[in-house]
Amino acid sequence: MTDALSHDQLLDRLGEIAVRVGLNLQPGQQVVLSAPLGAVALVRRITEHAYKAGAGLVTTLYSDDVTTLARFQYGTEGSFDTAAAWMGEGVARAFREGAARLAITGGDPTLLAGQNPEHLSRASRAASRANRPAMELISQFATNWCIVANATPAWAAQVFPDLPPDQALQALWQGIFSASRVDGPDPLRAWKDHDATLLARARMLNEARFDALQFSGEGTDLRIGLADGHHWAGGAETTRSGLVCNPNIPTEEVFTTPHARRVSGRVSSSKPLFHQGALIDGIEVRFEEGRITEAHANTGNDVLQRLLDTDEGSRRIGEVALVPHSSPISRSGILYRNTLFDENAASHIALGQAYAKCLVNAEGQTEAELAERGANQSLIHVDWMIGNATIDVDGLKDGRLTPLMRNGEWVSPAHTNA
Amino acid sequence: MTDALSHDQLLDRLGEIAVRVGLNLQPGQQVVLSAPLGAVALVRRITEHAYKAGAGLVTTLYSDDVTTLARFQYGTEGSFDTAAAWMGEGVARAFREGAARLAITGGDPTLLAGQNPEHLSRASRAASRANRPAMELISQFATNWCIVANATPAWAAQVFPDLPPDQALQALWQGIFSASRVDGPDPLRAWKDHDATLLARARMLNEARFDALQFSGEGTDLRIGLADGHHWAGGAETTRSGLVCNPNIPTEEVFTTPHARRVSGRVSSSKPLFHQGALIDGIEVRFEEGRITEAHANTGNDVLQRLLDTDEGSRRIGEVALVPHSSPISRSGILYRNTLFDENAASHIALGQAYAKCLVNAEGQTEAELAERGANQSLIHVDWMIGNATIDVDGLKDGRLTPLMRNGEWVSPAHTNA
Ligand SMILES: [Zn+2]
Ligand SMILES: [Zn+2]
Ligand SMILES: [Zn+2]
Ligand SMILES: [Zn+2]
Repeated sequence: MTDALSHDQLLDRLGEIAVRVGLNLQPGQQVVLSAPLGAVALVRRITEHAYKAGAGLVTTLYSDDVTTLARFQYGTEGSFDTAAAWMGEGVARAFREGAARLAITGGDPTLLAGQNPEHLSRASRAASRANRPAMELISQFATNWCIVANATPAWAAQVFPDLPPDQALQALWQGIFSASRVDGPDPLRAWKDHDATLLARARMLNEARFDALQFSGEGTDLRIGLADGHHWAGGAETTRSGLVCNPNIPTEEVFTTPHARRVSGRVSSSKPLFHQGALIDGIEVRFEEGRITEAHANTGNDVLQRLLDTDEGSRRIGEVALVPHSSPISRSGILYRNTLFDENAASHIALGQAYAKCLVNAEGQTEAELAERGANQSLIHVDWMIGNATIDVDGLKDGRLTPLMRNGEWVSPAHTNA
Repeated sequence: MTDALSHDQLLDRLGEIAVRVGLNLQPGQQVVLSAPLGAVALVRRITEHAYKAGAGLVTTLYSDDVTTLARFQYGTEGSFDTAAAWMGEGVARAFREGAARLAITGGDPTLLAGQNPEHLSRASRAASRANRPAMELISQFATNWCIVANATPAWAAQVFPDLPPDQALQALWQGIFSASRVDGPDPLRAWKDHDATLLARARMLNEARFDALQFSGEGTDLRIGLADGHHWAGGAETTRSGLVCNPNIPTEEVFTTPHARRVSGRVSSSKPLFHQGALIDGIEVRFEEGRITEAHANTGNDVLQRLLDTDEGSRRIGEVALVPHSSPISRSGILYRNTLFDENAASHIALGQAYAKCLVNAEGQTEAELAERGANQSLIHVDWMIGNATIDVDGLKDGRLTPLMRNGEWVSPAHTNA
């Protein structure tokens, strides 16, 4: 920690890390930046660093919680299947023409709680369809992209309900700066070291080529088959054109594609899940041949059931990720109610869409071919924390188990220079 | 005036008039709303009224003076020819698919003063090209559209430099509310009456079918030939699909397409012109066969010369508009430094692009055919005030002059029910 840094200095560092480490922005690239209105100060820091790095043009697409909510408060019944397909296609074209994508997260997580769930689900489905061309390019790393976080009073109030607003906002910023590794003496160096650690973990798992992972612990006895030719990723990624970017700031996970038809057993959630403003907690689920056949949540069960009924693929998983219980975000003890942070506090699985990036030689294969290899397909991708201090993880290969994690921690250290 | 109305009530009325009178928004239409960041409050009022009117989706594209400026402060030499063609095409697609377009004006008029003029002009040209598909649809009234204004501290400081910031902002809002006719007892009725007055003027001029207009007065002796099959417009417009919208709030002008090769004589500006943050004042110009052959400005002459050298069409005019010297905006005595207001304070001509809408039977004609009829083509359209209390205007037909304006006022009253 460098106590001498002011908020403005830390914010500037976050902007610089987003541009240089997150995007690794190249001269001449355009940037498509999406941000909540409350992130204007961070947008301005990012924009300045992007132009200094040679950006051709930075275009910011702001969202506003107030007008997002107004739609559900005042919109007419026929309007909720509408989406901005023209914008989705425009952004996809930007990516195809080489623009980088930077997304700032941090809206009010409970904004839409209390709105008509059927309207929310129709609007969300329409938006997913409209954004699909752009999202596919993102998930294929057709261009360099990155997500960073921005604290807002509404989000801070959710994370620190017992603090006065000013202190809550400050505490959330502190958490973001710390988890994003910009509060130390040399953020660029810190990211280099961190990427090396995650890369070493992913390499070890890629070399082991496990057939399945076995999760065991309180309430959990789950075998997750891995997709044929699965690939473990973590930290920095390489785009199709060979650029190295860091898509998530922060990140602590190594993750891969499970086999959508080879998951069996039972698992319970280790942290609450926030979906469209609703809290889902105390989830218990049974898998048979990859499909969730029984599911129940102590809180938000109706939201969970609706989520599972989204489409064919929403009852199967598209990601499994390993995060040690001692990860900095986990140790902070903060429940951020934001996936970018909470998924990096615990090992997790994700309902829904798989990442093509987490399969070797996926380029050029059809959706049917990827599905045949075990990659799940869905409009949703919802991460769901299952790791905690009691969980053991073993790798299964040719019937033999190799201990990977015990009591939530890696058995062997990563081989890095860090 | 209704003194009892609060600022918030007037702002809400402006939002309602923009949606109901400006756009005449239809149920199911999307809205593409562009706005400076300082207009968030007005954007929220507009969005609420749009959803209440049945909007499918309202998408706001915010611009930020700080990041606009950052581009010219920190951008690298190679970057200034870049534009967001992906966004221009996306917005054009939105319009083709039926979205309405609402633009909020009101950024800092001097924002870019002092930046490298060559960078500004390259960036502006690139942006014009990228936005051309969308702008063509707008000028053809392929969809319903409207521009309204929002006061910001930076703009207010320019308009009222002698007032303290709070009072300047309040005075600018008062000017906007008043010119936009939302401060009376019944704004919807006021707009209906006003549209009827402008329509009556335009109808009179369309029936007269003048060959040319003769402007005479201090420093001005100018004959402006009108395009073959020119059409006078003013106030409400009708889109291709038959929707009646009010593209400019406020508006006081009736205007048509001059013949790009039939303008001759000399003319001097009656009000300063603001272009890309620069002030151009004391302009004197000579036309021969439609082309500006001599031009000089007492202030900003270099900016004027660069403007005239933009392209082939920037030395010819694409619009002539009649506004009485007694128009409310003129009487307010406020120089807004914003075209939407200042062009409605005086008769004016515009350097550059003509409106296809101001030609009868223009639909389906090629650019060459329109040019043959006298319609000018250019990347620019810059309005330039030439009317004042000394100006007389006559209509010329078959060699005979008909008095239209004397000392800046209409000779005959408009025939309306107002
Ligand atoms: Zn994950
Ligand atoms: Zn995930
Ligand atoms: Zn005009
Ligand atoms: Zn004009």
